[in-house]
Amino acid sequence: MHIEVVTIGDELLLGYTIDTNAAHLARTLAGEGVEISRRTTVGDTADAIAAAVREGLDRAGAVITTGGLGPTSDDLTKPSIAALFGRGMVLDEEHLAWMEQRFARLFQRPMPAANRQQAMLPEGARKLRNNHGSAPGIWLEDDRGRWVAMLPGVPREMRGMLADTLAPLIRERLGDDRRVVRSRTLRTTGIGESFIADRVASLGAIEDAGLAYLPNAEGTDLRLTVRDARPADAERRLAAAAERLRTVVGDAIYGEDGADLAAVVLDLCRERKLTISVAESCTGGLLGARLTAIPGSSDVVVGGVIAYSNALKASLLAVPSPMLAEHGAVSDPVVRAMASGARAATGAAMGLAITGIAGPGGGTDEKPVGTVWIACDLDGVVESRRLRLIGDRAEIRQRAAQAALEMARRRMLYGSALWEPAALGAKG
Amino acid sequence: MHIEVVTIGDELLLGYTIDTNAAHLARTLAGEGVEISRRTTVGDTADAIAAAVREGLDRAGAVITTGGLGPTSDDLTKPSIAALFGRGMVLDEEHLAWMEQRFARLFQRPMPAANRQQAMLPEGARKLRNNHGSAPGIWLEDDRGRWVAMLPGVPREMRGMLADTLAPLIRERLGDDRRVVRSRTLRTTGIGESFIADRVASLGAIEDAGLAYLPNAEGTDLRLTVRDARPADAERRLAAAAERLRTVVGDAIYGEDGADLAAVVLDLCRERKLTISVAESCTGGLLGARLTAIPGSSDVVVGGVIAYSNALKASLLAVPSPMLAEHGAVSDPVVRAMASGARAATGAAMGLAITGIAGPGGGTDEKPVGTVWIACDLDGVVESRRLRLIGDRAEIRQRAAQAALEMARRRMLYGSALWEPAALGAKG
Repeated sequence: MHIEVVTIGDELLLGYTIDTNAAHLARTLAGEGVEISRRTTVGDTADAIAAAVREGLDRAGAVITTGGLGPTSDDLTKPSIAALFGRGMVLDEEHLAWMEQRFARLFQRPMPAANRQQAMLPEGARKLRNNHGSAPGIWLEDDRGRWVAMLPGVPREMRGMLADTLAPLIRERLGDDRRVVRSRTLRTTGIGESFIADRVASLGAIEDAGLAYLPNAEGTDLRLTVRDARPADAERRLAAAAERLRTVVGDAIYGEDGADLAAVVLDLCRERKLTISVAESCTGGLLGARLTAIPGSSDVVVGGVIAYSNALKASLLAVPSPMLAEHGAVSDPVVRAMASGARAATGAAMGLAITGIAGPGGGTDEKPVGTVWIACDLDGVVESRRLRLIGDRAEIRQRAAQAALEMARRRMLYGSALWEPAALGAKG
Repeated sequence: MHIEVVTIGDELLLGYTIDTNAAHLARTLAGEGVEISRRTTVGDTADAIAAAVREGLDRAGAVITTGGLGPTSDDLTKPSIAALFGRGMVLDEEHLAWMEQRFARLFQRPMPAANRQQAMLPEGARKLRNNHGSAPGIWLEDDRGRWVAMLPGVPREMRGMLADTLAPLIRERLGDDRRVVRSRTLRTTGIGESFIADRVASLGAIEDAGLAYLPNAEGTDLRLTVRDARPADAERRLAAAAERLRTVVGDAIYGEDGADLAAVVLDLCRERKLTISVAESCTGGLLGARLTAIPGSSDVVVGGVIAYSNALKASLLAVPSPMLAEHGAVSDPVVRAMASGARAATGAAMGLAITGIAGPGGGTDEKPVGTVWIACDLDGVVESRRLRLIGDRAEIRQRAAQAALEMARRRMLYGSALWEPAALGAKG
């Protein structure tokens, strides 16, 4: 099944809004066996909307629109497409009553008159329920079986309606015979893309799934994709391919799809009843922010010290001043002292420390921008390593925080954090 | 002048990549007097590319494409459009030599044979210089004056080529007579959208520019837009409108366009030779991370304490334990003690403190999720305030960090941080 997508809105065309709906629609529909063959963006004018939808119907026979279902005068999607189908607009009493109740419940006030327009539907339309807003979606089909599904433009409403209503409808129409595209992403960190590729090469081909390497500031994601398969086959083939990949890069995989390494580390700590503290120099709080971004982190994270200046490294983390003078703040002895100092200052079981040169200034020949030391003190046993990270200031800081989290993960899972070098976008 | 944009790539259509080029193109071209009348996205097939470009030329007479100029076999933009124009492909010796030199210089190795394709150009094409990559852009025009400009898909290369080469070319074609759309954004924080609207209403209309309110986790941005004006007129009208807005909301405006409040605070500190320290509970390092994200922050930021647990509030920030027991960690006395504790622990001139309930758990009737206290101790004089912030955990943390920065800004600029309530997305 091929579908065209028409996204509607002056704000999109003017570039004030980035169209994130389109990517979400494409990924979701691919998972249901639908391929998007073209995407068109037009402004809020009836002629432009009708033309784009008509062309899409002529080419593909099926069109999904987003946007233009709101209560204001520039919301023209429904009447434009109704006219294209030769249908009038009729008031849906049931939806009007539902909207009035919704306003009374949520806002304790009568519904504004403008919203009445949202209850006007093309004749013969099927409503698509909106669990996140007041505009219903619309399904309109002609006597040749060609159809248009109209979804709201607000991302939360669009996503909800797609998942709750439209995707099941399409699934039903396609039946078990549909061929889908499904993906599964294994998230790795602490190992360079080419090192992964070498290990994967030792497997021979991953026959049953395509493999894409997606490097980013958190590591390298490995995206497995199966195309043109029945849903159950796709899932089985993805599981088998993931299993094979795990045999060679399993130690570097911290999670799948949307996994966050900070949440993984917190879970491992929780299992082991360990508490965490941080000592941050060049990341300036980013590691603490990553850990505490996870709901419920307070049972593991006690806090720590942002020791941006050398004076604070000495006073709050008890790094000896002569050590700072002799080795410099970005050095092995200092990062180890920081990790131990975090534990001593906080009483946590684990101290994670970061010190480095995030740039753009401050680099030297010996310690160029991107030189970062990280250390982990767990119950008094300290491990440390040097990283040479690439990217701009923001990326170097992100990579450094991620590396410290990976150090904690490996320490807990494998007993040591001294994994192979050339990690995390390292230069050499 | 109307232009259609055709963005090319399977990854875009499949939803693996979000199309950020389109928005950037639209905003830049609007500033030059060009309106994008339609945007189309197609996959990497010659037929689809040619069809979309042909339709765009028929409607608008001018098309800009992005993507499909790389060295691989799925890069079909040039040959597809050359065929549409009835032109052959010819080797551009000059570009080939430039590419070979570039490879030798940047990578110290010979150019891969695959890149040779990038020096194949449609007959009669004009090259658009690429200062950020090896693929040249292409300008192709027919004898009726209809044209296609082909830009690379890599955002950095596309943006560079647009700014360096294509925009000046279009500017020249349009001459001084062109009518442009220009925007200017005033960034406010610490004042609710409806409070701004009340103050703006007192001005009467801002006749000469449209005003949009753009609320986000950092505050409310006020976007002024002038349409259909000569470039110099547009700038003059924007300046006049900004000036008028400043008369009523000037105190809440911390910068324009891409300004970052953290950088503004650092600059104010630098002028006054003040140093900053932080004491963070619910933000867990986010405030420190915001401040240290700015290059060169180390001359102002000394560091601070992430006091996520109550024990650390007591031990590292000297918050009295009886105070914690009596008032709770999220309270006025505690946040004030934290701000002073940060100064005492670090020796900084200013201590900024945050404690609150970021959720989703931990709220009570008396202190619901979103209750946050912030405080600023400057040279021993402490001010504090309670915020009631809306949004999910991430938003509440972002809003809290932004509010603390605003407190510092107001303290330095106006002598007091106790601005009017109902700030920063407050509930009531």
